[in-house]
Amino acid sequence: MKISNKVINRLSLYHFILDELGEEEKYISSFKIAELLAVDNSQVRKDIRSLGNCGKCRVGYDVKKLKDAIETTLGFKQTRNAFIVGAGNLGSALAKYDSFANYGLNIVAMFDSDKSKIGSYINGKPVFGLERFLELKNKFDADIAILTVPKKAAQQVTDVLVEAKIKYIWNFTPHILKAPDDVKIWNENLIGSFLQFTNNDEKN
Amino acid sequence: MKISNKVINRLSLYHFILDELGEEEKYISSFKIAELLAVDNSQVRKDIRSLGNCGKCRVGYDVKKLKDAIETTLGFKQTRNAFIVGAGNLGSALAKYDSFANYGLNIVAMFDSDKSKIGSYINGKPVFGLERFLELKNKFDADIAILTVPKKAAQQVTDVLVEAKIKYIWNFTPHILKAPDDVKIWNENLIGSFLQFTNNDEKN
Repeated sequence: MKISNKVINRLSLYHFILDELGEEEKYISSFKIAELLAVDNSQVRKDIRSLGNCGKCRVGYDVKKLKDAIETTLGFKQTRNAFIVGAGNLGSALAKYDSFANYGLNIVAMFDSDKSKIGSYINGKPVFGLERFLELKNKFDADIAILTVPKKAAQQVTDVLVEAKIKYIWNFTPHILKAPDDVKIWNENLIGSFLQFTNNDEKN
Repeated sequence: MKISNKVINRLSLYHFILDELGEEEKYISSFKIAELLAVDNSQVRKDIRSLGNCGKCRVGYDVKKLKDAIETTLGFKQTRNAFIVGAGNLGSALAKYDSFANYGLNIVAMFDSDKSKIGSYINGKPVFGLERFLELKNKFDADIAILTVPKKAAQQVTDVLVEAKIKYIWNFTPHILKAPDDVKIWNENLIGSFLQFTNNDEKN
């Protein structure tokens, strides 16, 4: 099933809400979700309808069934191994973001060019030199690289990742990367995000 | 003019490309932009058409005019003062992200509850205790808070920001914040981003 990026984004936000409900809350209404996210109730209902059966009843959706349906639809249960390339502040912050593992993103190791960082561990993830990227990519069967190096190093490091046949690059640098068509690049465009939210009333 | 979030996102990526061109490159074709971003050429042309006159000629767009048009349309030139709330790894990474200033986001100070951080400077930005938020919000005339505290502190800190009548909260925590309708919240949903790029072939 083809789901648009906007719907994927909203479904993951619904999942955050469900995830924080107490054990005793067995049902949730679309109104409550809509209110928390400041989106239209009709939008929430439509998104949830697209998931198939979510145990809708008079008092709302069955929380457990709705969570399961979102998890199945968005594929949280397929775990993917990933590397963080760049062990500075941003890379370290992402390495410490334990929620990723719950959503199928398993960060197995980090890379940096700084010799004082190589050999250390950040939140239990070992930091290696970039010259070991190919070897460790094969060892860990990782297909995602999260790129958090400084802008000026971004392309040079990308060339190493491409050479090692990485499949996905999640680009946190404000540099547009050059890579062959079979490498999928996702630009985490923070500037664009800022401009979206200050320019306009559309919800994310 | 109303611009959709997707178009804002793409225009900011075009701007990154233009920004990195050398002095000698006076023109750029839509094909080159499309190729670098792996999007359709027709999409690039349509987005640029929406900006009005960008000095299009036989050899492409006038780089300077196109940059100016994007800057005017997206409002880079209106500078906004912002605070980073949470001086951990993520907050520090964002404080060091000097590109923000070029796009109108001026980070003036940071807040944290850790006494060992209060009084220090991160990339020249002073770190204050949260009890001074209201006083400094008024002093700096800041209307944006970038929220990078741990998930468990997110709502409590949000209540302080709301009390101080902050206008925008850029939420980097994986927690859905409760706030009155007149506070605009933008969820920087990294999990959603990851799920979007691994689930589907739509471009961002």
